[in-house]
Amino acid sequence: MNFPALKNDRILRAARGEEVDRIPVWVMRQAGRYLPEFRELRSRYDFFTICRTPELACEVTLQPIQRYDLDASIIFSDILVIVQALGMIVEMQPSVGPVIPDPLKEPLDLDRLNQSIDVKKELGYVFEAITLTRHRLNGQVPLIGFSGAPWTLMCYMIEGGGSKTMSKAKKWLYKYPEESKKLLQILTDIIVKYLIEQVNAGAQMLQVFESNAEYLNSELFDRFSGPYLSSICSRVKNELKDNSVPMIVFAKGGHYAIKQLSTFDYDIIGLDWTIDPVEARKIVGNNITLQGNLDPCSLYGPPEQIKEMVKNMVSKFTKHRYIANLGHGIYPDVDPEHLRAMIDAVHEC
Amino acid sequence: MNFPALKNDRILRAARGEEVDRIPVWVMRQAGRYLPEFRELRSRYDFFTICRTPELACEVTLQPIQRYDLDASIIFSDILVIVQALGMIVEMQPSVGPVIPDPLKEPLDLDRLNQSIDVKKELGYVFEAITLTRHRLNGQVPLIGFSGAPWTLMCYMIEGGGSKTMSKAKKWLYKYPEESKKLLQILTDIIVKYLIEQVNAGAQMLQVFESNAEYLNSELFDRFSGPYLSSICSRVKNELKDNSVPMIVFAKGGHYAIKQLSTFDYDIIGLDWTIDPVEARKIVGNNITLQGNLDPCSLYGPPEQIKEMVKNMVSKFTKHRYIANLGHGIYPDVDPEHLRAMIDAVHEC
Repeated sequence: MNFPALKNDRILRAARGEEVDRIPVWVMRQAGRYLPEFRELRSRYDFFTICRTPELACEVTLQPIQRYDLDASIIFSDILVIVQALGMIVEMQPSVGPVIPDPLKEPLDLDRLNQSIDVKKELGYVFEAITLTRHRLNGQVPLIGFSGAPWTLMCYMIEGGGSKTMSKAKKWLYKYPEESKKLLQILTDIIVKYLIEQVNAGAQMLQVFESNAEYLNSELFDRFSGPYLSSICSRVKNELKDNSVPMIVFAKGGHYAIKQLSTFDYDIIGLDWTIDPVEARKIVGNNITLQGNLDPCSLYGPPEQIKEMVKNMVSKFTKHRYIANLGHGIYPDVDPEHLRAMIDAVHEC
Repeated sequence: MNFPALKNDRILRAARGEEVDRIPVWVMRQAGRYLPEFRELRSRYDFFTICRTPELACEVTLQPIQRYDLDASIIFSDILVIVQALGMIVEMQPSVGPVIPDPLKEPLDLDRLNQSIDVKKELGYVFEAITLTRHRLNGQVPLIGFSGAPWTLMCYMIEGGGSKTMSKAKKWLYKYPEESKKLLQILTDIIVKYLIEQVNAGAQMLQVFESNAEYLNSELFDRFSGPYLSSICSRVKNELKDNSVPMIVFAKGGHYAIKQLSTFDYDIIGLDWTIDPVEARKIVGNNITLQGNLDPCSLYGPPEQIKEMVKNMVSKFTKHRYIANLGHGIYPDVDPEHLRAMIDAVHEC
């Protein structure tokens, strides 16, 4: 496809370990409810209607790019679109979040899944949104594609919604380890195809979200998360070959897994706010880029305080092989001007 | 008070770093919904009625002691009784958990709190339950008292219930740091009195639960959790002098704070299941007892697998200065016989 030339490649340079004139910055969930222009559009359309309508997904993806001096865009979508593609109903309930009314209860329920879906067809709306957005971005900043990781998707499919313990999904790991691996493998195979098609459609970077790493530990990670995360990255890169793009892995709450993550093929490791940047750099060595990790709640503080915290964070990460970001998605009640203070502070470092 | 002589002091010996014939074991939330005898009693009484009725609190405290070969009992109560004593309404809603219908919204709301309560009077029912239970235990095992830590109680008081992010309570830390410290200090002063009176009433060990450490990080912990945890332990021990009892601190999700915790006066650090025992021992040194940290979900697996996991855990902690436990409270849908497998496995090590 013939896309406009890229004018800002800071984030790609940081991903490759090259020098940058200033630290690249983007923000997880940067298109979303904290923006009045998003809430306005959302008042007219259902959440998944926006995801499924390329024009709308493109529009909200561009909203933060038009407002802020960001160094990357991320396609507006949801990690649960894969779960929908597998045949499960996912509803987005106001002030509750995603709900799956009929979750997987027993391993036999795996038979309910459409395991051999045509990813290009079932998730075509995401690829269309990516292509459209890449054009509309007109080279201003790179476009990031993403997917939820297998364990994180498995949690939603079994819990049917949020949980403080993920005990139903974790029960599978201990009670039905082989069936759990079967489900994780089904998800992995789809995620690989999904990410490859995102790049084919125009994504210039990819992030894999293992948002529920916090419920595992080192042993469970090594059995039920790490191998799939690793395989996703290797397979996507192997199949894309010269068209490969930098890949980010973000395992929220996975403080115990930083070393393991650094042995996979990912170019970038995203860190949540509980991780000390200096410690993380010691653990992973110098051949990987780190991303993160300002506490999203720090944006509730006054702008001057936010700037101090950003300076402190950058001084710990240093400017080399670093992408500034929050340590978790931005929360809906953040003042958009406070996000601006963060972005400006990064660029002033 | 004249209590029956203690027949099993394993847990106290482990707390002091003395040799034990076998590893002591107890389980967080060991009196509770996973037991049919608890559910039966709970079907007749409201949750807080059980907490407030010494005879009932004693009965459920003893239920697991009668069923299993445990090395400690822990008084049945709730961390939110302090919040109630401060004048806030707390409801226990089925399948939701605790709900505070009228949480603190602004720092001005601190004026709503009864800050100068008579702890002996307002929480007298807990002390009565402890004294009664200590007698009924008849020296079989020691009785543990407990309190929620200030930051954890502050979360409930502001969030009004569970939260995946604790963003409302964290907003206070960034937006109203001085008022947050005022609230944390109010809570600390009450917790100190509360724990001292628990010991005066017969508690032979104390645990302080910082269940919401996972929402902080090292910087926030050092400002809003650590100083209060430290002060609680020092003040309780200083005031009790020769009547002091061993004190446990458990900061769930506080992987970043293990070193700091080891510099306080606590005798025992409880670890959640994400912490590697070998790493934790390296961090804290040899002069502190560790407690934990089997993944509570591992009890969903078959008994033989539970026994293997316990063996593996014990081999990492070693038998010296170690108290076996789960890494979080036991979940309500665990098969009681699976807990038995865990307890037996510890004692076989």
